[in-house]
Amino acid sequence: MHLSRREFLTTSTAGLGALATPGGFFRFLEAPTDFTGDVLRSGRIRKIHHHIADHKRQHIARVQEYLRQPSVSANGLGMKECAELLMSYFKELGCKEVELVKTDGYPGVWAYYDAGTSLTISYYMMYDTQPFDEKQWSSPPLAANIVKMTPFGEVIIARGAVNDKGSDAMVFNAFDSILQVEGKLPVNIMFTCDGEEEQDSPNFHQVLQPYMERLKQCNAHFSLGPSQDADGSIQMGLGGKGLTENELVCSGRSWGRGPVVRPIHGSRKAIMDSPTWRLLTALNTMVTPDGNHIAIEGFHDAIRPANEEEMELYHALVQKFSGKLLVAEKEDCKTWIDNWSDAEAVRHLLFDPSLNIDGIYSGYTGPGAAHIVPDRAAAKIDFRLVPNQDVRTTRELLRRHLDTHGYPDIEINPIGGDEWTQTSVKAPVVQSVLSVYKEYGIEPAIWPREAGSSPQAQYTSPPLNLAAASGGLGHGGREHSVDEYIVIEGNDKVAGIVRAEQSYVDLLFAYANWPMG
Amino acid sequence: MHLSRREFLTTSTAGLGALATPGGFFRFLEAPTDFTGDVLRSGRIRKIHHHIADHKRQHIARVQEYLRQPSVSANGLGMKECAELLMSYFKELGCKEVELVKTDGYPGVWAYYDAGTSLTISYYMMYDTQPFDEKQWSSPPLAANIVKMTPFGEVIIARGAVNDKGSDAMVFNAFDSILQVEGKLPVNIMFTCDGEEEQDSPNFHQVLQPYMERLKQCNAHFSLGPSQDADGSIQMGLGGKGLTENELVCSGRSWGRGPVVRPIHGSRKAIMDSPTWRLLTALNTMVTPDGNHIAIEGFHDAIRPANEEEMELYHALVQKFSGKLLVAEKEDCKTWIDNWSDAEAVRHLLFDPSLNIDGIYSGYTGPGAAHIVPDRAAAKIDFRLVPNQDVRTTRELLRRHLDTHGYPDIEINPIGGDEWTQTSVKAPVVQSVLSVYKEYGIEPAIWPREAGSSPQAQYTSPPLNLAAASGGLGHGGREHSVDEYIVIEGNDKVAGIVRAEQSYVDLLFAYANWPMG
Repeated sequence: MHLSRREFLTTSTAGLGALATPGGFFRFLEAPTDFTGDVLRSGRIRKIHHHIADHKRQHIARVQEYLRQPSVSANGLGMKECAELLMSYFKELGCKEVELVKTDGYPGVWAYYDAGTSLTISYYMMYDTQPFDEKQWSSPPLAANIVKMTPFGEVIIARGAVNDKGSDAMVFNAFDSILQVEGKLPVNIMFTCDGEEEQDSPNFHQVLQPYMERLKQCNAHFSLGPSQDADGSIQMGLGGKGLTENELVCSGRSWGRGPVVRPIHGSRKAIMDSPTWRLLTALNTMVTPDGNHIAIEGFHDAIRPANEEEMELYHALVQKFSGKLLVAEKEDCKTWIDNWSDAEAVRHLLFDPSLNIDGIYSGYTGPGAAHIVPDRAAAKIDFRLVPNQDVRTTRELLRRHLDTHGYPDIEINPIGGDEWTQTSVKAPVVQSVLSVYKEYGIEPAIWPREAGSSPQAQYTSPPLNLAAASGGLGHGGREHSVDEYIVIEGNDKVAGIVRAEQSYVDLLFAYANWPMG
Repeated sequence: MHLSRREFLTTSTAGLGALATPGGFFRFLEAPTDFTGDVLRSGRIRKIHHHIADHKRQHIARVQEYLRQPSVSANGLGMKECAELLMSYFKELGCKEVELVKTDGYPGVWAYYDAGTSLTISYYMMYDTQPFDEKQWSSPPLAANIVKMTPFGEVIIARGAVNDKGSDAMVFNAFDSILQVEGKLPVNIMFTCDGEEEQDSPNFHQVLQPYMERLKQCNAHFSLGPSQDADGSIQMGLGGKGLTENELVCSGRSWGRGPVVRPIHGSRKAIMDSPTWRLLTALNTMVTPDGNHIAIEGFHDAIRPANEEEMELYHALVQKFSGKLLVAEKEDCKTWIDNWSDAEAVRHLLFDPSLNIDGIYSGYTGPGAAHIVPDRAAAKIDFRLVPNQDVRTTRELLRRHLDTHGYPDIEINPIGGDEWTQTSVKAPVVQSVLSVYKEYGIEPAIWPREAGSSPQAQYTSPPLNLAAASGGLGHGGREHSVDEYIVIEGNDKVAGIVRAEQSYVDLLFAYANWPMG
């Protein structure tokens, strides 16, 4: 499953050998996969590859066109025009149905490509981007200029270059070359597109809702796009943790004590209760004194032990990448909780829930001092959930905990949430991706579950329960940051735009030809 | 003592009768005070009063002139020009010495008026104001327009109208009328003026420092200005609590655990420590679970019991104003800690120290969600201190507490502090003010100590140890807020500019003629 880039999910390893090693992850391929090699070496695929190579200039131009159309959901810039541009791409692709889907926020887009085949995939796109502060960029974020970047050669710098508009334009390019050569795509595709991904997809369920019965016909949820790290290695995540983000608010108004209308001068603390102290006390009841273990009654009840496949994948990870795991995290965090080893940390990251304070705020936070007893204190907390915990029960347990500990007045404002999701390594869509990587000689690191979460879990959770996989060559980076880029030229490890688009063709055909059942 | 308006110190009572009552606060006048009446009814005072009445138009113009010169220490607007204007006022007054006093921030001003008398007062002024957002004002904050305001008749609306530039301009007017009629003031005055009061006076000690030996010659610290509430009543505070404001910072960098460089994705909380949870735990060790009592070892050791005078004043307050105390606070806070009665609340406010969280902040605090394990959490906390606690010892106890509870890495960044201060009701300068109020038939409520604090404690604490009092008729309001005003016309309860300036003359002469020793 291609988890959202919002979450920067690729739990990092580094310096992975690009060549398959004995006892590595390809042992999870369950059957002989020679037919994938046969497909990739077939004349029809070769013709499509040539078409891509011959149209590099036009394909780059499409990536630039899509990136030059702004679509900032944070402030509305270009959103309407970008939705229209996206719909025009679906129409050019020959989709039978292309619909703008109204929501309480920015609309989604539905498109259906009917290949007349028995196989149907669900495909997710997002058309909004993060905002940008143009002054900070070395190349204007809406110019989509081609610039040199070591060690990748030419790249395009633009907001959305890799997250996700540039990536999606490359997928459109790949599909277009298939159409030009073959006349049609090898599978039916149901596209559901989000205009508010960067706002945490608050209304994405409204995009899916009208099409749920249709989506149930899909055989898998599939994502194509640049999946290589800067060193060419590939991480595959088979799922994600659940997430429930909530704002806890303690206010004098709800409590009926302390400042009930507005902040009061700090010198008055001697005679009045403080919602801020109260929130701190309440938060502290929710964790062990080290802040590392959740102390909410019943919170762990639903957790199931790791299953055999998860443990196998975990052991493969720590055996194959011993000393090379969590490298990005280690740059910013020298020690794990209780001085766990890296292997222990990976285990806890995979299998433990967590409770984090994303933010806490009350009173005066500017320079110097302002003396007030704040009338309100709030914290944004996120729970990460593992199978079989769920968002609704977690909120209920939190509410019950606050009530039974004497904090019935503390409000819980739900901000967002996703259920945990997991696809088995045995699922055909995962196997087909693995088989392509094996042909390429690139052994991916497979995480049975990533630490992050995504609203795309809505495809893989009930009622859809779709198996999901993602993959593809190519590389981009600096999502959400300045000078976001996508590699155009590439080097001996990282694919350029031509090789990347060719890999999307390979992956689509490998799945279309996978022996089902 | 005139405590800083920054602190909104006037602990409120309401509906105080303007007439003296038996057993009220005038029993604290220790001697017959007929001579004050004699002074106030003397021909020379009458001539000065007439001069003020005859120059009302010019006096209003001076108030407007000073208010139209901006002086916003938060952003620097007009600061230099305002210091120059203030110095020109001292020169017009005939001060022998007028000096700009350099500090690490905006300069102070020193001025010395030599009346050739044996009596010298210390006098504080501030020349900066709060910033303003002009759009929100009904009359432009720098226009100093005269507008009608019920029930006060004409008022001037301007930033600084009452806090303190408008008030100080009225004092200059009063002194000027004395000069015009008498040729000189009745006492020597050492003026020390602050350009950073609204920044919590971080450098005011540098203003006083060069003049400490001179200031030791003063007989008292005196403040004149509008002291009436909207209903005409007057509150006198004889001192203030101590204050030490500190920022506590818990960071991964100092701790060496959790995110040591920058925030890390919130999903990684499962394997890393959080400075935010740590700060919350540390804060919770510092108070009882209700957040209302300080649990720092040794914190209460230095507190002396309330003395006889304090208790007498306290009993007078709760007897005379039963049911009318803490009225402003009650608008915003319906219940006191542990459901204390109002009389109990007044006692705790006078005699208890407190620990307040003015602000706490960590991580993401904007709309929606951002999933991070913050690398830093901070809280601004203020201790309010009572005799004989002090700022330095309090910080030492805080440090020791954090160290012994396992938080040696949590930084304490001092932001500001003032020692507690107290003047006896028996001090001549207080007695002289009381005697004038008695002549007026306005019985003030006398607070042995106010809940707030002020850097003006630097006059009343060692080494200066000056007795301090403040007083005067007149009224203004909305300090720090929009449409700040000072009353020009007045009504039957609140003095207008003429009567207010006349009261400053009365108060100055009453003290100048007070039988010392």
